[in-house]
Amino acid sequence: MPTVPDWVKQLKPAGPQGSELLEQERAKSKVNTSALSTFLHTKAGLERKHKILAILQQEKVFDKSQNYFAGRVDRFETALARAKKLRQLYVKHGWTNDDKQCANELISEPGPYGLHESMFLITLQGQGNAEQHKRFLEPAQEYKYIGCYAQTELGHGSNVRGLETTATWNPEDKTFTIHSPTLTSSKWWIGSLGRTANFAVVMAQLYLGGKPYGPHPFVVQIRDLKTHQPLENIAIGDIGPKFGYNTMDNGYLLFNKVKVPHISMLARFSSIDPKTSKYIRPSSPSLIYGTLTWVRSTIVLQSGGVLARGVTIATRYCSVRRQFQDRDDQSKESGENQVINYTMVQIRLLPLLATCFALHFTGRGMMALYEANQRKLAADSGKAAAQASNRGAGPEETASSSDLLADLHATSCGLKSLASYTAVEGLEMCRRACGGHGYSNFSGIGTWFADYLPTATWEGDNYMLTQQVARYLLKSARSVLKGVDPTNDTQSILSNFLARQDQGAAFDVLSKDEDIVEAFAWRSSFLTFEALKHRDEQKRSWNSLLVDFYRLSRAHSQYMVVKNFYETLQSPAISSELDPPTLDVMHKLFRLYALHTLEQEASEFYTSSAVTVRQIQLARTSSVMKLLEEIRPHAIRLVDSWDFPDWQLDSSLGRSDGKVYEDMFYRASELNPLNNITVDPYPDSPVLFREKEAQKAKL
Amino acid sequence: MPTVPDWVKQLKPAGPQGSELLEQERAKSKVNTSALSTFLHTKAGLERKHKILAILQQEKVFDKSQNYFAGRVDRFETALARAKKLRQLYVKHGWTNDDKQCANELISEPGPYGLHESMFLITLQGQGNAEQHKRFLEPAQEYKYIGCYAQTELGHGSNVRGLETTATWNPEDKTFTIHSPTLTSSKWWIGSLGRTANFAVVMAQLYLGGKPYGPHPFVVQIRDLKTHQPLENIAIGDIGPKFGYNTMDNGYLLFNKVKVPHISMLARFSSIDPKTSKYIRPSSPSLIYGTLTWVRSTIVLQSGGVLARGVTIATRYCSVRRQFQDRDDQSKESGENQVINYTMVQIRLLPLLATCFALHFTGRGMMALYEANQRKLAADSGKAAAQASNRGAGPEETASSSDLLADLHATSCGLKSLASYTAVEGLEMCRRACGGHGYSNFSGIGTWFADYLPTATWEGDNYMLTQQVARYLLKSARSVLKGVDPTNDTQSILSNFLARQDQGAAFDVLSKDEDIVEAFAWRSSFLTFEALKHRDEQKRSWNSLLVDFYRLSRAHSQYMVVKNFYETLQSPAISSELDPPTLDVMHKLFRLYALHTLEQEASEFYTSSAVTVRQIQLARTSSVMKLLEEIRPHAIRLVDSWDFPDWQLDSSLGRSDGKVYEDMFYRASELNPLNNITVDPYPDSPVLFREKEAQKAKL
Repeated sequence: MPTVPDWVKQLKPAGPQGSELLEQERAKSKVNTSALSTFLHTKAGLERKHKILAILQQEKVFDKSQNYFAGRVDRFETALARAKKLRQLYVKHGWTNDDKQCANELISEPGPYGLHESMFLITLQGQGNAEQHKRFLEPAQEYKYIGCYAQTELGHGSNVRGLETTATWNPEDKTFTIHSPTLTSSKWWIGSLGRTANFAVVMAQLYLGGKPYGPHPFVVQIRDLKTHQPLENIAIGDIGPKFGYNTMDNGYLLFNKVKVPHISMLARFSSIDPKTSKYIRPSSPSLIYGTLTWVRSTIVLQSGGVLARGVTIATRYCSVRRQFQDRDDQSKESGENQVINYTMVQIRLLPLLATCFALHFTGRGMMALYEANQRKLAADSGKAAAQASNRGAGPEETASSSDLLADLHATSCGLKSLASYTAVEGLEMCRRACGGHGYSNFSGIGTWFADYLPTATWEGDNYMLTQQVARYLLKSARSVLKGVDPTNDTQSILSNFLARQDQGAAFDVLSKDEDIVEAFAWRSSFLTFEALKHRDEQKRSWNSLLVDFYRLSRAHSQYMVVKNFYETLQSPAISSELDPPTLDVMHKLFRLYALHTLEQEASEFYTSSAVTVRQIQLARTSSVMKLLEEIRPHAIRLVDSWDFPDWQLDSSLGRSDGKVYEDMFYRASELNPLNNITVDPYPDSPVLFREKEAQKAKL
Repeated sequence: MPTVPDWVKQLKPAGPQGSELLEQERAKSKVNTSALSTFLHTKAGLERKHKILAILQQEKVFDKSQNYFAGRVDRFETALARAKKLRQLYVKHGWTNDDKQCANELISEPGPYGLHESMFLITLQGQGNAEQHKRFLEPAQEYKYIGCYAQTELGHGSNVRGLETTATWNPEDKTFTIHSPTLTSSKWWIGSLGRTANFAVVMAQLYLGGKPYGPHPFVVQIRDLKTHQPLENIAIGDIGPKFGYNTMDNGYLLFNKVKVPHISMLARFSSIDPKTSKYIRPSSPSLIYGTLTWVRSTIVLQSGGVLARGVTIATRYCSVRRQFQDRDDQSKESGENQVINYTMVQIRLLPLLATCFALHFTGRGMMALYEANQRKLAADSGKAAAQASNRGAGPEETASSSDLLADLHATSCGLKSLASYTAVEGLEMCRRACGGHGYSNFSGIGTWFADYLPTATWEGDNYMLTQQVARYLLKSARSVLKGVDPTNDTQSILSNFLARQDQGAAFDVLSKDEDIVEAFAWRSSFLTFEALKHRDEQKRSWNSLLVDFYRLSRAHSQYMVVKNFYETLQSPAISSELDPPTLDVMHKLFRLYALHTLEQEASEFYTSSAVTVRQIQLARTSSVMKLLEEIRPHAIRLVDSWDFPDWQLDSSLGRSDGKVYEDMFYRASELNPLNNITVDPYPDSPVLFREKEAQKAKL
């Protein structure tokens, strides 16, 4: 590695030092960082993190110092080594899945076992029968089979019904023929497939007696277990570099009429009777429905922390960075101003800081609802089964919990879309708030942003999902219009709107928190009935309403975020865990999130008459600006409470000790491999790198 | 490279083929692509592009096929080879600077000579005297000296006055001592410095007799011309990987009391008399001011084309990609729908398509204004010089053209900020509109976006710049309030607003184009006088108004874009070059840009009473949706008119022949180096890549 002269090593940043500035910041706020950390992550969660962190830091393979420099092939190699080590640690320390998840978050890079450990095992577990568990799941749990989940195709993303890969039942020898009839039927984007997996769950259109039965999952061996070469008539490869996620080998996969045995079709919900060649229909599709809802709820829960990483980095750097003097204070003594003192920086960062909490609490609310619903579903199933055995009835008996699941499903769709885009856009805003240095990989934001981006597309494209929210809201509105009694919150707010719409709204959003929540509910309800009018009365085409649906989903999801934040602040838990000064700041963060959102979406709030033009003006020019000023002194302690270890952030700008410039310089000068080469700069010289020339000369 | 089985090579995408779909698109519109191309780029511009393209494609070094795969060091090596070859071609073919610029745009990657060929030569030329031209500029033009422009420091970006590097005059030996007193004084981000340059223009605080004279430029040799090693007491290196721009060696630079001769200080505008050691003040700072304005105008002009690349790719791919059936048309025959038929896709892409034209025409308007002003300035200077020689007066005589320059300066600041962010955000929107495949590097959008991003920071941070616009608008408003007669458009619209504000506005934005322009002028004027009231009457602090200033700058800049687009459509040039059907579509694009922007910024338009709530609702639900439908059939021909060669786009998704899937597959399977490795996937095996293991075994 390049050497740095001694006179350079002795230089310090111009004062005041970053470490002094951050200490001052921490001294001037009474926010109880540790209590807030515990409230956010639980005591057990924090202890786990520090335990796992200590283990990872001892292993050389997890050293991050070359992460930002290495090219694709090298990064993949390191990621594979890390994945193996992680599995060894899991076995050695007897980790739980929570421990492993925690380790993955600390390492913060997708790894080649990623899809094996998630979708492959989950699908085998959830959709395989006992025989298949023994045949496939057990070796997979021992990493003898390493799998992936092959659904998306080159020509088919969101629309699963449009998949082209076929699985044709051959009654004569009790096999299926898996086939890729076209180039667009090539499986594509499949994580862990490109170089790593030797098995795949393949989603294919089932054909039986010449008739299509829709997409079904098949377990297929794709590579030789010894040579790791693709099996005959199977083509596999990595799909190439991406904007991020380059430690993962997303792959493609094609079949040329490959025969697999009867046991390959995962048979817990639907199957083929090998004797009669008859199709046995799925018994309870709502359970699968439930898995997707759970995955989306997880995305909502994680989005707060994802964004908090960027906000932590930007807030710390903007407290260390000083630039220009305040225009109204040009005295020589004051020196340059901390960037975070400028309102233009505050308006970009502090609402995002509030958003981290808002999303986190919303995700928690979602998870609690999901778990409550699962319990109810299990109870109902028991009842239904009992009734069914008495009356010979089918799965429609579970209607009541299915209805709740529909609400949860729609909520998870809308919130997944809102939360992941909010995190994506917020991270880019944080990167920009770091000025020029935000562009350096050492900021730690750009690569994190790039790796997170696909979350907006997977588990339901963020735009597509909003149609499901709209469909559900329209259905709820129709039911409310018919006079059906509300059975959930969505129906309640719609019903409340109907009852009050002739009196009009008079929400005191600037003084009363509960009125803020009501104003968000009002706007969402207004947009729902507007959309219903367009569709049911004016008979407008579905396609012509997609833009309205997108707005509607966004409005409804924002209502849910505001509501969840509000309810968290009302909960006994928060009052018992946080002291009054800390609680007071949390309360201000709620108001900042809500009023800033209200002001950003002003036009819909006016149009629905939820608030007046004057209220919006006041929210912007007075309330929001005042809240920025009040929250500003607590910014560092608030980001500290997210408790990201420096090792996890891997950011020069976001260092908790404020040694921003020292770290930038160290990484650039001492870790940077480009500084090992000497170029020949003259256009007429054919020599590029002199070291290479010298090597050639030696040979 | 990996081999692909024959049965895979014979596969075709499911029909209809992309090529057929794009042909259908082209057949259904009467937009005259070739006439529109000529109007956008001029005949000479198009001819130049095709001439240069043919030359570049013949040279192996410009082959792009490994660009998306290579790591940092390899990419830099290739970029250096390309820079050298480009210089050789320039000499060989006797290229003009326009030819070279065209070649750079086709190659579309920053190169290691980038800053030598721009800022280094421009600064020597513009700020050096005749002696310095001979001593520095001439060898630089022959690439004996290869330079960079070292202004930004690790701790100092936007605030040039805060720079820490010092240049102290030593009267005893007529030298300057260049010194870096702290770590934060390290030059940082300097393009072409990290590995390539052997000279630098260094901006340093001049000290003379212990007194500071502010930042001045010094020409300093930094590396040995033979060994290319840093000279004694100089530390240099590359600053490491960035989010993009990785073919450029942005560098750092520190000096440990390095002495340079008197001739090093660029002396055209200010200098030190070596005999008396007296400082000679700058004669005409407005000329330097002019260069920055020119650079920003260029950014505005380019932003349209920058965005058009993304729009071209996304529009073509969304015409080839089909997904889901239309919900209101579920007949079996219709098959999957082209994605571009969905209104949710149209609302994301078509306003951006309109924006490309809007920004391009605005950039052109700016350039024309700049050139007219330069001519006026030259004429005035002549007059002033004549007068000065009569009366012994100084540079303040050029006041009238300086006033115009101030207007142009403010305009360029606001538009640079708006245009570059519009392009940045629009490119990300285009990437998303491509769904999952937008995330692949083969989309051609992600890397282009990442390379373009710093434009938002350099030549004035986009947020900082808005303060200059606000300052100028406040000054103009004060002058209008005093009753001074308007001398430019800004003063005219402010004055018009004052005259009419008591009557109120009644702009018929939904029917009359000129009323749209007036509504934008009204909103900008309203916000100007609001801001003035806050500052001058309510005496609010500058810092508390920064958010208002940002909005004001944005509003004023949007007004200018709308006005420029409108005026281009009124110009005799466009009517003579475009036939009525093409002109009609251009007119629709104007309305789409303007009404969509008006709707996005609805809240400011209401508040200023420029339009009513009802008008905004109609603009959204009726006018904009109708325009999308009307423009949709012309989308492909409109993007074709930007005339990007496929070689330039380097995108699977944006191929002009629609062979999207074939190209994706080819790049992934046949160009991808990761597919050359075979992993050992089992966690307990220490082997990662089997090829490496096999090599080790051989040794």
